[in-house]
Amino acid sequence: MKKRTHTCGELSEQQTGERVVLQGWVKRRRDLGQVIFIDLRDREGQVQIVFNGEVQPEALKTAENVRSEFVLEVEGEVLKRDEENVNEKISTGQIEVLIDKVEVLNASKGLPFMIEDETELSEDVRLRYRYLDLRRPNMHETMKLRSRTTKLIRDFLDEEQFMEIETPMLTKSTPEGARDYLVPSRVHHGEFYALPQSPQLFKQLLMVSGFERYFQIARCFRDEDLRADRQPEFTQVDIEASFMGKEELLEMMEKMMAGLVKKLRGVEVSAPFKRLTYDEAMNRYGSDKPDTRFGMELVDVSEQVKNSDFKVFASAVSGGGSVKGICVKGIAGSYSRKDLDSLGSFAEIYGAKGLAWLKVESKTEVKGPVAKFFDEAAQAELIESFQAEAGDVLFFAADKIKVVWDVLGALRTKFARDLNLIEPNTFDFLWVTEFPLLSYDEEEGRYAAEHHPFTRPVKEDENKLVSNPEEVRAEAYDLVLNGYELGGGSQRIFERKLQEQMFQALGFSEEEAKKQFGFLLDAFEYGTPPHGGIALGLDRLVMILADRHNLRDTIAFPKTASASCLLTNAPSGVEKEKLDELQLQIKPKKEKKE
Amino acid sequence: MKKRTHTCGELSEQQTGERVVLQGWVKRRRDLGQVIFIDLRDREGQVQIVFNGEVQPEALKTAENVRSEFVLEVEGEVLKRDEENVNEKISTGQIEVLIDKVEVLNASKGLPFMIEDETELSEDVRLRYRYLDLRRPNMHETMKLRSRTTKLIRDFLDEEQFMEIETPMLTKSTPEGARDYLVPSRVHHGEFYALPQSPQLFKQLLMVSGFERYFQIARCFRDEDLRADRQPEFTQVDIEASFMGKEELLEMMEKMMAGLVKKLRGVEVSAPFKRLTYDEAMNRYGSDKPDTRFGMELVDVSEQVKNSDFKVFASAVSGGGSVKGICVKGIAGSYSRKDLDSLGSFAEIYGAKGLAWLKVESKTEVKGPVAKFFDEAAQAELIESFQAEAGDVLFFAADKIKVVWDVLGALRTKFARDLNLIEPNTFDFLWVTEFPLLSYDEEEGRYAAEHHPFTRPVKEDENKLVSNPEEVRAEAYDLVLNGYELGGGSQRIFERKLQEQMFQALGFSEEEAKKQFGFLLDAFEYGTPPHGGIALGLDRLVMILADRHNLRDTIAFPKTASASCLLTNAPSGVEKEKLDELQLQIKPKKEKKE
Repeated sequence: MKKRTHTCGELSEQQTGERVVLQGWVKRRRDLGQVIFIDLRDREGQVQIVFNGEVQPEALKTAENVRSEFVLEVEGEVLKRDEENVNEKISTGQIEVLIDKVEVLNASKGLPFMIEDETELSEDVRLRYRYLDLRRPNMHETMKLRSRTTKLIRDFLDEEQFMEIETPMLTKSTPEGARDYLVPSRVHHGEFYALPQSPQLFKQLLMVSGFERYFQIARCFRDEDLRADRQPEFTQVDIEASFMGKEELLEMMEKMMAGLVKKLRGVEVSAPFKRLTYDEAMNRYGSDKPDTRFGMELVDVSEQVKNSDFKVFASAVSGGGSVKGICVKGIAGSYSRKDLDSLGSFAEIYGAKGLAWLKVESKTEVKGPVAKFFDEAAQAELIESFQAEAGDVLFFAADKIKVVWDVLGALRTKFARDLNLIEPNTFDFLWVTEFPLLSYDEEEGRYAAEHHPFTRPVKEDENKLVSNPEEVRAEAYDLVLNGYELGGGSQRIFERKLQEQMFQALGFSEEEAKKQFGFLLDAFEYGTPPHGGIALGLDRLVMILADRHNLRDTIAFPKTASASCLLTNAPSGVEKEKLDELQLQIKPKKEKKE
Repeated sequence: MKKRTHTCGELSEQQTGERVVLQGWVKRRRDLGQVIFIDLRDREGQVQIVFNGEVQPEALKTAENVRSEFVLEVEGEVLKRDEENVNEKISTGQIEVLIDKVEVLNASKGLPFMIEDETELSEDVRLRYRYLDLRRPNMHETMKLRSRTTKLIRDFLDEEQFMEIETPMLTKSTPEGARDYLVPSRVHHGEFYALPQSPQLFKQLLMVSGFERYFQIARCFRDEDLRADRQPEFTQVDIEASFMGKEELLEMMEKMMAGLVKKLRGVEVSAPFKRLTYDEAMNRYGSDKPDTRFGMELVDVSEQVKNSDFKVFASAVSGGGSVKGICVKGIAGSYSRKDLDSLGSFAEIYGAKGLAWLKVESKTEVKGPVAKFFDEAAQAELIESFQAEAGDVLFFAADKIKVVWDVLGALRTKFARDLNLIEPNTFDFLWVTEFPLLSYDEEEGRYAAEHHPFTRPVKEDENKLVSNPEEVRAEAYDLVLNGYELGGGSQRIFERKLQEQMFQALGFSEEEAKKQFGFLLDAFEYGTPPHGGIALGLDRLVMILADRHNLRDTIAFPKTASASCLLTNAPSGVEKEKLDELQLQIKPKKEKKE
């Protein structure tokens, strides 16, 4: 193997007349008999190489036997192409390389699919042949963008004097949060490590240690049933800082995100980012991660309809629920009654019993199956509430507030997509703040932490932690981008007493709290500074920056929805001796409870 | 909490007269009644702050109740110290800050130990209170150096156009190599993931994918019994490149390492690094990771002594072994006969039955218990072989070659330390090459890969892979620094056929090879480029760069020798329901086989 002088993609007229050594893959080959053209591809791009039998019969002979995806090493001279042969579509289109020496470094069988951006392949096939799937230019670009993203984040945080510190992967299983992946210990009989769901406790301990500014791009694990946007292992940009209040932290994150979008997508994002409290976000958008690139906000009409003849509305309100609606502009003409009715089943996915709609006919009149329940004044009032115009359609959900939010939140996103309301190349950042600290878990019959048990209550609410837990707001913030939750953070509890109250509110006995988190409670007594942080989902961030819609496309070797790797066939059975060493036994298979 | 204007450590005369807001920990407090001095410490250093009762009685009052490691926020004015009060020992010693506002952000109990570099503490106590142990300045510095090391490595590799790509942590268990940590799958009954021992297979697949230049600072796992310099999880700088031959790769690594040493320690290291073949390294130093900062090379005297009357020597040679020795300069006067004899038990650790020694009296005469077996000519010849002088002592090991290497290799290191022969601040890099590709595993009755089964044989030896496996040299290279193996790498097999031969040499049936590594064999058929790489142990690299002697001091939260975390108490028992979900059962405890 010779030393490569250039990558294919970097060649241009500048090298005209130079001798070059290239290495790469055969992308395409055109055999014209005495002349063979090959598009040679490497990581930087492609260039046309030419074999001419009149100049170098030996090289031509080799080229005759070359096929797609063969790996070649070629040597030759860079020539300027004739005017008529210039290819404007590729960066190296002004030149070609006349080859006089060629070596086949490796051959290739026929591929199971073409290496092209557009693919009709099932994802199963792509994952099974991931090493070929990753050759597709857009997958290459996504991995490159991911690598650049992490480099930029590291450079930024380094500039801000953050240290990257690695925390353990073999850690302790804790009862809070999602399900842990467990790792049996061979040395300690019957004991297990847990893979971390996040480095939360360790990063707080690093604050106790006085590092003040920590970050880590950390792998995290959750053994949950997977959805399209979840992976059993995921990567988190994990940040924690002492002596840095919420405002300072948010400002820094805004600077980081704006820098990323600018450098990676060339788009200017203005800071400070918008902010919504949790209550506002839910009431206006029906979501705590609203896509604010478009309007279509929720309007509460409970007061207007609570006495209406439409029982569905009236009883929702009298039962303690709400009636809210959205106005979709100008679709009355293009959506038939059947189209509109069929949205009822969409609403059902989100727990609604149905979806009422009204077509706006004029400033004072609506039409539709439920229009009859509203007199002229009521109709006009409804139209006024939405500032609707003729041609718009109003949709209503009437239910418990949570269902109303979910249905209308989903519906507005659906319409935005269907109607193409979203401006491309827009990065609409948003902070959502003042989350409830705790939520009541009906099933467990106790409060659970909305973020995690180390989140600080808002100052004014601290005294309600034990008496009125449901009213306590958290000093927490989520970063939302284009309808995705990029991540979240909070200021943390750093006083033993407050942390103990928090565990108490969560229903931990004193003993349980000590057993699980005693080391943290102890640590808080030795001069723990005020601190807070944030964690961002890297996979999702890359997905948005790369303009992709599937989290798996941002991960080199992802798992399927059943947490399998189709390429290597993990997980797999292991030899009995290995289990013996771990002193474990597999129980006979039984039906899984749902 | 206010926004800090400066860190303690960055203050200097430049800020004289400025108002500053500082936050940090109370390092020391001197109470002179109406005046209290506090050394306030933060991540960047410390500064003296002053509370003067005549100026600010309120602040003084607060300061009276402050104790060590309290967390303070103070505000005041930077004053130049009087000439006689300047403290040259600290960077902020020219100034002090007169405080008028102070807030105690958090208190601290009395600490279980002092936050100082020097410590007599047992490591158990340090690990249990790791969050305090990490406050000690030299631990802080080590973590900072670790963070800087990874940053510099990333910057370097980025410059060299390497992309960082993450590979999975939940992977497939493979039979080669060390013992895997297993992770039971909840979804796939009776199946397990393995935590990676290295990203080897994935990085090779990335080469198949055409990324050409990959790196990752990757966590790796080995469930082995731990020694002082091993951890169950460790961090590896993992590098792989296509179209980059051995020479180019080595040159690049030399540039990277020289840059690190220069930037982190200010020492110039000259490249290219020395190289030794494996055979040379063993024969001259008795080690494949020799410390070449000092001489004391092994000398083979087998030929000279094979007919001597000293049966131990003669029979070692006639039995197929060797007799080698080292010459330790000028210790004859300071090492008594008893001292020298006692080294026999040191030799026994390494498998020797004893250690012969001879004191050199003159150019022609040796003395000692075994001197009598050598006539005058033989004595002179031995002295000549070592180029020894009066006052030196010669040590000999006579045994199977492997034992001779081990004993003398260890002995020369021991003497170098005991006699202080090692120049401080020296970074003596060395490549060891041409390792045997395979070694015969007596216990298993088959060949095992010395590095791993993907290492390429040296070109000239390829045809001996099946016929004479023990003679095949590997296209492998270890990077050695000051007697530590920093890491190793190789050029890889990239042809299906050769890889199949390798598996065959390792005693895999065709079926086994396919089952375990079929995806790799398949991948090799689709245009796999020539590639190779290297992996460096980050923990060890940091240990040497930080001039420390314990791997655990380079890791924020390390495990003990029994793979426990004394701080969080991992591993630990888990609730039965969790095991039920995994359909696992713990077998009753039984005696562990040794």
